[in-house]
Amino acid sequence: MKDEVFYSKGMKHVKEDYPDLYKENVSLNEVTFSGKVLDYKTQKLIALGITATNSDSRAVKNQIKSTMKEFNVTKDEIVDVLRVVLLIAGKPAFMNAINILYELTEK
Amino acid sequence: MKDEVFYSKGMKHVKEDYPDLYKENVSLNEVTFSGKVLDYKTQKLIALGITATNSDSRAVKNQIKSTMKEFNVTKDEIVDVLRVVLLIAGKPAFMNAINILYELTEK
Amino acid sequence: MKDEVFYSKGMKHVKEDYPDLYKENVSLNEVTFSGKVLDYKTQKLIALGITATNSDSRAVKNQIKSTMKEFNVTKDEIVDVLRVVLLIAGKPAFMNAINILYELTEK
Amino acid sequence: MKDEVFYSKGMKHVKEDYPDLYKENVSLNEVTFSGKVLDYKTQKLIALGITATNSDSRAVKNQIKSTMKEFNVTKDEIVDVLRVVLLIAGKPAFMNAINILYELTEK
Amino acid sequence: MKDEVFYSKGMKHVKEDYPDLYKENVSLNEVTFSGKVLDYKTQKLIALGITATNSDSRAVKNQIKSTMKEFNVTKDEIVDVLRVVLLIAGKPAFMNAINILYELTEK
Amino acid sequence: MKDEVFYSKGMKHVKEDYPDLYKENVSLNEVTFSGKVLDYKTQKLIALGITATNSDSRAVKNQIKSTMKEFNVTKDEIVDVLRVVLLIAGKPAFMNAINILYELTEK
Repeated sequence: MKDEVFYSKGMKHVKEDYPDLYKENVSLNEVTFSGKVLDYKTQKLIALGITATNSDSRAVKNQIKSTMKEFNVTKDEIVDVLRVVLLIAGKPAFMNAINILYELTEK
Repeated sequence: MKDEVFYSKGMKHVKEDYPDLYKENVSLNEVTFSGKVLDYKTQKLIALGITATNSDSRAVKNQIKSTMKEFNVTKDEIVDVLRVVLLIAGKPAFMNAINILYELTEK
Repeated sequence: MKDEVFYSKGMKHVKEDYPDLYKENVSLNEVTFSGKVLDYKTQKLIALGITATNSDSRAVKNQIKSTMKEFNVTKDEIVDVLRVVLLIAGKPAFMNAINILYELTEK
Repeated sequence: MKDEVFYSKGMKHVKEDYPDLYKENVSLNEVTFSGKVLDYKTQKLIALGITATNSDSRAVKNQIKSTMKEFNVTKDEIVDVLRVVLLIAGKPAFMNAINILYELTEK
Repeated sequence: MKDEVFYSKGMKHVKEDYPDLYKENVSLNEVTFSGKVLDYKTQKLIALGITATNSDSRAVKNQIKSTMKEFNVTKDEIVDVLRVVLLIAGKPAFMNAINILYELTEK
Repeated sequence: MKDEVFYSKGMKHVKEDYPDLYKENVSLNEVTFSGKVLDYKTQKLIALGITATNSDSRAVKNQIKSTMKEFNVTKDEIVDVLRVVLLIAGKPAFMNAINILYELTEK
């Protein structure tokens, strides 16, 4: 349930050097993804949508990777998230995520 | 399916004064929410999550209202979306949406 | 040429209490709007476009007011700016500015 | 040390309705402001600077209020933070915070 | 008139895999840049200004390239846009675009 | 006191080609970091905090480098800034800066 923890290299350093901050990140992740009603996969797709709006390529890449790996989320599902990104956050954020998605799935 | 169209007052003016722009907004909404795989409700929750990250109170209010009205989305479901907002976009965006949610549901 | 200076109430206080900061704001405004090639009006429309992407209602209002007053910019010209906002920054930013525009022009 | 908790009305509801989320907010606040080296006041000023860049007026207001109340932070100190906001985040974010600051201190 | 369509690699994939979404992108582009009053070049400069505020390097690069190629827009004109970016969006967004501009024009 | 000026390659070109804009950048930097009360180092840490919220990797890198070089700011101090980034701007912005910090300090 703490997927992002393992996808960002820097988190290993945080774990060693700042254990209080690491523990907080783990618990924050747990509380986030322990929704009362929505399932984990839906929440992860929401996380991907929000991340994509900021055009932070590294984070978008990690989110897409982790979503596909953990839930066998398909390209179609991710594109359905990115449709919403186009509407709410505009074309550059949409294109950025589309480019990353195809770079990942073509390999 | 074109809910936002009806929740923003300005859209009526766009319809009258700029019909090409209005038509585009309608078709953009339709293509967005005609996902191949995800259902409309899930896409609306993603839209709410993205909107909440920008702390645009008017838009957040409209999104929460329309989601609750069209899908009988509960407070718990919205809070599950906002958990992700806290993780990905930080506390001010989270608190802003929480405040709006309770202002709406307490009435 | 220093229009924003006069449209924000707080700037009067800055002038009295922090004259170095006030002077800097004036010179920053002057250097910005003394473009080599683009005319002042075009630069003001760019300023409006950027401001509208952040959904900061107070700033959007001031920008629209000052643009209309100084240059007799029409509603059509502002909507042409907002078309770009829709494409690049998404629908909530677009609707926010549209709402403000009509609130201002209907009075 | 958990000041924001008490400045946002919605947090009371979170405490009652979503105790796990409330507890997380408290611990996140504590870990944030338990820096190894920087003192709490410096961290609060950083929080104000970041908040001001997003032009979220409600959050900026709460941050300025809590900073002044807890640390007797002066207007001059806050303006020193806002100088950095002008440089890094631009004039609308700066003016928004300046306006809020003077609305609060003139009462 | 649909320039961005051709500057982003991912758009080719969207065209093949999600034709409805592709068509929407084309029509959104057309409606955007078919302003009633402002000419296409002015709207493209506004698009560049907005894009530059988000520090999304890939998008800024594409915007500068397409603007220079389609309209023989000069470096001076782009810098006039970036002056406004400095004022409204701050120094990091300005420097990011300046760096990209010179990387492109020095080749 | 004009540190950013020297850390961004593009600024050299601005100095040669747009001396008015260069002068403005220098004076803006000076007025920013000539706070009445806060010392320069505290203001630089605030600048780092704000920059980190935008996930603009190049700017974050320059800010961390310049802060460490000019003030012998330690990793612990920077992490104390980033704690606030986690709270106010969310995990992707935090992780992005953490990754950059460790890439810089491990060399």
